[in-house]
Amino acid sequence: MIGYRTYLDLIPKLIRDKEVIASSMMKEVDRCRKALELAGGGRNVALVCGGDPGIYAMAGLVYELAAKQEAPPEIEVVPGIAAVNGCAARLGAPLMHDFCAISLSDLLTPWELIEKRIEAAAAADFVIAIYNPRSKKRDWQLGRAKEIILAHRPPDTPAGTVTAAFRANEKITVTTLGELAPETVGMQSTVIIGNSRTFTWNGLIITPRGYGDKYEI
Amino acid sequence: MIGYRTYLDLIPKLIRDKEVIASSMMKEVDRCRKALELAGGGRNVALVCGGDPGIYAMAGLVYELAAKQEAPPEIEVVPGIAAVNGCAARLGAPLMHDFCAISLSDLLTPWELIEKRIEAAAAADFVIAIYNPRSKKRDWQLGRAKEIILAHRPPDTPAGTVTAAFRANEKITVTTLGELAPETVGMQSTVIIGNSRTFTWNGLIITPRGYGDKYEI
Repeated sequence: MIGYRTYLDLIPKLIRDKEVIASSMMKEVDRCRKALELAGGGRNVALVCGGDPGIYAMAGLVYELAAKQEAPPEIEVVPGIAAVNGCAARLGAPLMHDFCAISLSDLLTPWELIEKRIEAAAAADFVIAIYNPRSKKRDWQLGRAKEIILAHRPPDTPAGTVTAAFRANEKITVTTLGELAPETVGMQSTVIIGNSRTFTWNGLIITPRGYGDKYEI
Repeated sequence: MIGYRTYLDLIPKLIRDKEVIASSMMKEVDRCRKALELAGGGRNVALVCGGDPGIYAMAGLVYELAAKQEAPPEIEVVPGIAAVNGCAARLGAPLMHDFCAISLSDLLTPWELIEKRIEAAAAADFVIAIYNPRSKKRDWQLGRAKEIILAHRPPDTPAGTVTAAFRANEKITVTTLGELAPETVGMQSTVIIGNSRTFTWNGLIITPRGYGDKYEI
């Protein structure tokens, strides 16, 4: 089993009797290359990601590297609970209508493109799930995203933040777009901004699917 | 346990020793109301959905109904593998960058709003996951969505369809936006359209995260 140490530490029972290679953060390319190398040599290798490997995680990079090999090993992607699923569940039901997932990390994507996507999502009234909202080095992007969305939605639009969903240090904040405080958000956080119909109830964020317009509920 | 019969049939072991109430399709409001009524009476009730209850499923409706009650029961949302997670895994790694989920069902949402969202997602180069692409009665929406996206992306943009992901009757099709044939798509299908950088390899759809722009891979 190969993975980033923080994620491997979350699954002690699964790794107990396995050969384990733990790597540090920001070594994604090395990690995936190593997994392919071992699998190419005939081993069964599990590459462990946080969340869903197919959503901002390692599945794509593994395939990109495999596509450059002459005889790549067999690869299977096992889907998981992405931050977007887990954080939504902890906040209530914010994703009940059309939504976008946007990463604010401009390490691998030009900021202009990220901004264009935030603008498009805000203007077309998508619920917006923000991945990688903030890190020590990337401290202004969430504030800018908030400004862009505020040009299309009122400040009382429900907004929620979940940090470390379902882990021991989980932190859930339900607030509004206007009150959303970037400095309370970190690397393990996902931020969800409601659409024009999203409401809060009992400390939860709920986006109606539209049944109330069609039926008596 | 309460659920739509098709979903309950998928989990025979889980429902074996439970009291089960199966309902037919299109009875979502009744189903959720019944779950709340039984829970309000002191029972532990599991409302079973397909996929993730928080993504186009029952979590929101349960909360909407609970919000109208004077003393609603305690509610917990257990996240699951949504169609977006499962279908992406079966197609390779199409969702490795910013994406939108859009439902083409205009039963509860005006078509004009759906079209506006497709247009925005296409123009801002989101990967697009299309829920509810087609049914017997809704047979033209996917063709129209395809037209709108084709105005922003070339016909050779990778597109994939997964019907009944991970079930016995699973069907996976990898094609292009131009060749995408709405008549091959049904009620159990999810369609995923790549962004401008998505490629196919070995019959799979892969969207690069951007590592190749920054590192030698």
